[in-house]
Amino acid sequence: MKKKNRLLNYDLIIYQDDDWFKFSIDSVLLANFVSVNLKHKFFMDFCTGNAPIPMLLSLRTKGKIYGVELQNDIYKLGVDSIRENRLENQISLINCDVKNLSNYFDSDTFDVVTCNPPYFKVKSDSFINRNDVKAVARHEINIKLEDILDMAFYLLKNGGYFAMVHRSSRFIEIIELFMKYHIEPKKIQFIYPKNGRESDLFLIEGVKNGKTGLKMLSPIVIHNYDDSYTDYISDLLNRKK
Amino acid sequence: MKKKNRLLNYDLIIYQDDDWFKFSIDSVLLANFVSVNLKHKFFMDFCTGNAPIPMLLSLRTKGKIYGVELQNDIYKLGVDSIRENRLENQISLINCDVKNLSNYFDSDTFDVVTCNPPYFKVKSDSFINRNDVKAVARHEINIKLEDILDMAFYLLKNGGYFAMVHRSSRFIEIIELFMKYHIEPKKIQFIYPKNGRESDLFLIEGVKNGKTGLKMLSPIVIHNYDDSYTDYISDLLNRKK
Repeated sequence: MKKKNRLLNYDLIIYQDDDWFKFSIDSVLLANFVSVNLKHKFFMDFCTGNAPIPMLLSLRTKGKIYGVELQNDIYKLGVDSIRENRLENQISLINCDVKNLSNYFDSDTFDVVTCNPPYFKVKSDSFINRNDVKAVARHEINIKLEDILDMAFYLLKNGGYFAMVHRSSRFIEIIELFMKYHIEPKKIQFIYPKNGRESDLFLIEGVKNGKTGLKMLSPIVIHNYDDSYTDYISDLLNRKK
Repeated sequence: MKKKNRLLNYDLIIYQDDDWFKFSIDSVLLANFVSVNLKHKFFMDFCTGNAPIPMLLSLRTKGKIYGVELQNDIYKLGVDSIRENRLENQISLINCDVKNLSNYFDSDTFDVVTCNPPYFKVKSDSFINRNDVKAVARHEINIKLEDILDMAFYLLKNGGYFAMVHRSSRFIEIIELFMKYHIEPKKIQFIYPKNGRESDLFLIEGVKNGKTGLKMLSPIVIHNYDDSYTDYISDLLNRKK
């Protein structure tokens, strides 16, 4: 069911659908993690969903922000949110396949590209409904990780930033793809559900044709032992960070 | 000056020289991190120094342990320690270059290889004394990372483990070398000097010709804000772990 929510404690409205699409904390972490500076004029968010990342980025930059979402129903939620927040001048959403973005933009156009992609590989023996909105958002049905890196390299200016959130279990594959597409990893931050547990997610940012030199940032822990949010997450969600 | 010390709170004696070679906490973390099981019969430690890792491994396995050290003065400290601890039957040290180990052993011989290598690249404009014992232990003067991976692959049995500690700033390069030499990373653990600081070191273990599948273990923090050791490190050094 379509619902109108506040985007955390931020002064933003976000439309979501409880049945098949809600934004996640992963997107909030990514929008907070990515490098943004005053020289950055053009931003692109792949697999933007109901556009939480473009909306959160609008709080950090006056640059122009594009978001791309393949699934029409989710795209429409994003369009409604952007209209509601009167962000039409800053944010434009495109209802297309990331793989087709070269029909819309020249190469070497963007300063920053972000992506919170589908996390899961499609196994040959799995029966995933290709028309299921939720499944498409979670599984690599329409787009694979390599397509994302390929298009990020194409769209980014030399020295532009690509930032992503993904599953820690796929970390090695992701490093290999960054290197293959000449996006040099510059900062990485692992996310742990609780202290003492294995990491499930991580944030990574690379620079197109960048020099070697990696910063491994302090870990992010989501929950305390009693399942409440840690101070770090609580501050982030309440916009104290 | 040569000194006889206890190896932490362990029931072991270790000889070191305050002027040019002391073992580090890095070696203790690596000896604790590496996978050891009852089927493991042959262990090899590259760049063994005064042999802290072979001695610590002797507390975890009844297997045969070899350590290799190029620098004769450091090698002799290790030999003295092993004699003092009456571990001659279990541990053998070899005074040679890791690159020449194929003169001593057949390929596919070892279950586990460990290495706490020289951390720093030699810059073309640096004036490092190639005869300086300390410099050779810290810089890639006589051996490079790639030589280490190459020899680890050669010596390991199929499915054998290679574990290493290294600088986080060289993480990407290390992942690439693991992949190049078909040692699939299976567990990684980042080490942070304090909470909220960037990681300086990390532990990594891979399996020769192993399947994909990585565990990103919970971070290790060395010091509390007041510079005392964290409980984790304190317990490790006092052998409660």
